[in-house]
Amino acid sequence: MKKSLVLAPGPTQVPPEVLAATAKPTIHHRTPQFETLFGEVSCKLCDVFQTKSPVVIFSASGTGAMESAVVNLLSAGDTVLTVEAGKFGERWGELCKAFGVNSVAVKAEYGEVVTAAQVEAALRANPGAKAVFATLCETSTGVLSPIEEFAKVVAKSEAVLVVDGVSGLAADVLRTDAWGVDVVIAGSQKALMMPPGLAFAAISEKAQGLMARSKLPKYYWSWPKAIKNLRDNTTAYTPAVNMIYGLAAACDMLLAEGMESVWARHARLAHAMRAAAQAIGLEIFAKAPSNTVTSIRVPAGVDGGKIPKIMRDKHGVTIAGGQGTMKGNIFRFAALGWCNDFDVTTALTALEYTLNELGHAVEPGKAVSAAIAAMQSPVPAAV
Amino acid sequence: MKKSLVLAPGPTQVPPEVLAATAKPTIHHRTPQFETLFGEVSCKLCDVFQTKSPVVIFSASGTGAMESAVVNLLSAGDTVLTVEAGKFGERWGELCKAFGVNSVAVKAEYGEVVTAAQVEAALRANPGAKAVFATLCETSTGVLSPIEEFAKVVAKSEAVLVVDGVSGLAADVLRTDAWGVDVVIAGSQKALMMPPGLAFAAISEKAQGLMARSKLPKYYWSWPKAIKNLRDNTTAYTPAVNMIYGLAAACDMLLAEGMESVWARHARLAHAMRAAAQAIGLEIFAKAPSNTVTSIRVPAGVDGGKIPKIMRDKHGVTIAGGQGTMKGNIFRFAALGWCNDFDVTTALTALEYTLNELGHAVEPGKAVSAAIAAMQSPVPAAV
Repeated sequence: MKKSLVLAPGPTQVPPEVLAATAKPTIHHRTPQFETLFGEVSCKLCDVFQTKSPVVIFSASGTGAMESAVVNLLSAGDTVLTVEAGKFGERWGELCKAFGVNSVAVKAEYGEVVTAAQVEAALRANPGAKAVFATLCETSTGVLSPIEEFAKVVAKSEAVLVVDGVSGLAADVLRTDAWGVDVVIAGSQKALMMPPGLAFAAISEKAQGLMARSKLPKYYWSWPKAIKNLRDNTTAYTPAVNMIYGLAAACDMLLAEGMESVWARHARLAHAMRAAAQAIGLEIFAKAPSNTVTSIRVPAGVDGGKIPKIMRDKHGVTIAGGQGTMKGNIFRFAALGWCNDFDVTTALTALEYTLNELGHAVEPGKAVSAAIAAMQSPVPAAV
Repeated sequence: MKKSLVLAPGPTQVPPEVLAATAKPTIHHRTPQFETLFGEVSCKLCDVFQTKSPVVIFSASGTGAMESAVVNLLSAGDTVLTVEAGKFGERWGELCKAFGVNSVAVKAEYGEVVTAAQVEAALRANPGAKAVFATLCETSTGVLSPIEEFAKVVAKSEAVLVVDGVSGLAADVLRTDAWGVDVVIAGSQKALMMPPGLAFAAISEKAQGLMARSKLPKYYWSWPKAIKNLRDNTTAYTPAVNMIYGLAAACDMLLAEGMESVWARHARLAHAMRAAAQAIGLEIFAKAPSNTVTSIRVPAGVDGGKIPKIMRDKHGVTIAGGQGTMKGNIFRFAALGWCNDFDVTTALTALEYTLNELGHAVEPGKAVSAAIAAMQSPVPAAV
């Protein structure tokens, strides 16, 4: 009787209420019924994204919405900054390159954080930069970017700040309007507690100004078309109707809890996972750890690739290994989305089993006990 | 106790088995479990698409997969032919224009069909044309293109034939490999009996040759990346896992019935709808009617916009009105996907009610009786 628990950084667990909503009979999208639903969902999304700007919805994965930001904001030959300290920051660079945009990478080593001072210096060195592309939580390393500080620096320039919040939105704190973030990209399959298949872009007025001057070719991803249709409570092309049902249910759950409480819950669970790892002598890989993903260095002498494999195949707990150069060096837990204390203790119990099975002895209950203690204490203010 | 019946040309009715499949717990996509599922689905899709070529899957609406064909086959400045006799043929032209491709429109009036002779003449006049973009069923008019004839003509040239089968696939006959169609685009929400949110492209070897020379910018839509990942039973970016569950269930239903039988069923139901319309003196709008969508001219003296509205709001049957310049002039029935004889009689009963309510008297049961007679007789060979 193996039970499955997904604690990977997306897809995440989907509440049965949300799955059931996605399985309602499909209605036609060019109807008052759908338009009412879509209009309501759009309002809820603004609350989740903490913005009064339009949040457009695409049938796509998060990468699609990232592409939409590049092709709607820029023209070939434009210069931009891309904050790169992991696989997803590098994706901004790859996207820009694919579309003929000059991207100047502002870099840090994997596990390290790019600072606002670096971004400020890069903006000074590239005064014509049209945009700064950053990542809220760099999923590949677990590092949290100082988005609020980035926003202060970028606000002083003509550039817009575009944040990939695909994994981090509704997990790590992101006050879009209050901080002055221009564009936030997200996907459905992370803290939004949905299956994969929807992607989002919140678009500020400043970003809409840049959008009006963009010349890169676009059709499916057109923000002007999406914004115009959003005003009529619809989409330019056939929306994923059943996913919109699910989105409404998921937003209702998030907003009933309240975004401040949602963030606090993620902070508490992530803090507990870090405390548990440290209690059994493991090292947190990220220097500025996010609450979205907890990345842990594989202990010396352990075959790192086997940790997620045994966790999943023997114990039913899906976590993630390292990607690219991180393969075998780190493993990643994400108490992301529909998670509570007992998911954390389950995952840590499975981790204790797994490490023992790999010959790395753990005193029974040591990691779990540390997590329990941490979850019952206030989260340190610095986190 | 109003029951809802969707007989619009997409989204269509989704069988409860398929909806239930989409509501299964979301699993992680980078797992052997998902790869097994995805590999099996890919094989089933090849059978549905009637091809041995790769069928790549995008999280997107059908328009996204249409865009993928333009950006993966072409370079800026290329010349192509676009077969345009309705809104969706025109979409090929718009897409080409958006990406800097010269599209030469091969046109017919709405309701008429573009002939293979027209395509042949246009290819002769544009010997460098890289591709011919056509539409299996032009959803806006209900016209069926002679794709087999197009393929014969295009095969004699260097060009590839790209067919928008978004509405028509698995409804009107399409023998992709046997006819030599190079690219077939489709969407999940039509005869594939799924909610909207997945889009597909079947890509022949000839098309892959052209793809290798394409220079238009691409990232999310990259066919080379999609084909490479497909060989490993996965996708480049997070797939819509739950929709893939549903797709497996839907393909199982289609293949259990058999594609020949699926096509014959659509032919039989569409023939019955045409017979019913003609029995009550209505005119079929399409000169070469598809089995995907039955478009009917609004009778003189009736407010055409009210037909779909009363059908839906009073009787619970969702059909489509006309789009663009066709608004108020035609209405469109689609016994598409998960439909049988009794859906047709229900819809026609609602139509009889509606026409009577709009002051256009119909002898009770006349349309329905004609459909019943037609459904019990062999379908004329010419259809």
